[in-house]
Amino acid sequence: MPLTAPLRIGALIFPAFTALDLFGPLQALNLLSLAHPMNLSLISTTLDPISIDRTILDGVVHGMGANSSSPFFTEYILPTATLEDAPHDLDVIFVPGGSGTRNQAATQPHVDFIRDRVQNEPPKYLWTVCTGAALAARSGVLAGKNATTNKAAFNWVKTVEGADEVHWIAKARWVVDGNYWTSSGVSAGTDMILGWIEHEYGRNESERIRIGMEWNALDQTDDPFAEIYGLVDS
Amino acid sequence: MPLTAPLRIGALIFPAFTALDLFGPLQALNLLSLAHPMNLSLISTTLDPISIDRTILDGVVHGMGANSSSPFFTEYILPTATLEDAPHDLDVIFVPGGSGTRNQAATQPHVDFIRDRVQNEPPKYLWTVCTGAALAARSGVLAGKNATTNKAAFNWVKTVEGADEVHWIAKARWVVDGNYWTSSGVSAGTDMILGWIEHEYGRNESERIRIGMEWNALDQTDDPFAEIYGLVDS
Repeated sequence: MPLTAPLRIGALIFPAFTALDLFGPLQALNLLSLAHPMNLSLISTTLDPISIDRTILDGVVHGMGANSSSPFFTEYILPTATLEDAPHDLDVIFVPGGSGTRNQAATQPHVDFIRDRVQNEPPKYLWTVCTGAALAARSGVLAGKNATTNKAAFNWVKTVEGADEVHWIAKARWVVDGNYWTSSGVSAGTDMILGWIEHEYGRNESERIRIGMEWNALDQTDDPFAEIYGLVDS
Repeated sequence: MPLTAPLRIGALIFPAFTALDLFGPLQALNLLSLAHPMNLSLISTTLDPISIDRTILDGVVHGMGANSSSPFFTEYILPTATLEDAPHDLDVIFVPGGSGTRNQAATQPHVDFIRDRVQNEPPKYLWTVCTGAALAARSGVLAGKNATTNKAAFNWVKTVEGADEVHWIAKARWVVDGNYWTSSGVSAGTDMILGWIEHEYGRNESERIRIGMEWNALDQTDDPFAEIYGLVDS
């Protein structure tokens, strides 16, 4: 399916998304964008700054960092669009993961956005990285499809609403099912995007970018982490 | 040298720093911070939002993205401190790279900060990732030391003021010279920080974090990129 230029990418962000889930793929896409025009939207419920890797509400740390004594280890990024006014006819919807995906209420608007867009103006691709697959599973759009997710959180993702309709692949750096690309945890997202660049723009381009990033890539089926966590397909 | 808790890390940011230079190491440190208290400051000239990977001035794209037609592929992060009011007695000064390092005027305050801190209240460690080494070289603090930098930009870095006083190591994922840790380009910074975590907290901790990030690591001397760019030591 030919991609239009500029490519319109919409990345969904929410409090306590995992930094590398987003910024690894964006690094590769940024280098791609030097040769292939694209626009990126960072989409959240409001335009308020979004805390990375930690949730801070009224000065109190929630989520993965709640048990640590490092409340000030948090970065903030600025959304560029709200879920309500996000650009239409996106070529790609990109869903990173992170401990924030475990906050069902905070991510319900994102889940609804995925469902609505896939039903009414389907993107050419849906990408999930890490536990971003939990949001896609909750939206119902992964029903009947093969997918993968973070290996440390694999068994949790399988418990979210809608996850029992998904064929979860344990040993995979990433999984492609039609236009749905889902990666394993954190760093795996960058390998997946390099794989997607190869698929879409060819090996020379993906290698140019990988070398520019000095990235040590794993192939699609090369997943040493499933075994570490003792995971099998379901 | 024992580290105090909480560990105080100050990362210098400037327009068009490279996303993964900063966020790869911060991902590892974030996971470390769950067990070892630390505070992170993101330090810039002002508290205004900082554009990642591109420089945007008055709506015009500068730097690496200037020749592309993707002006809207830019993310913004919020600094937490200015160079003037940054926390004192930092344990670590962390200098990422990126096309923004080529803007000598915009980064001169950061260069002055590095020189001033190293002279007057030396951090326990100075880390540079990618072309962050160019800022450290300009500050003079790398004079007489072994260091490395981004392989695509290696020959440019060797031309900045002060760089001729540095022993540049071409084939290295990262280089340690005393308390100065300098990495090769982009992804290499994350390998270096995992190496630093091993050095400081032990192999179990660095492996826990690497596995949590599903990161495919390269060792300190395992640098396949120097050869690609035909680089030799100087």
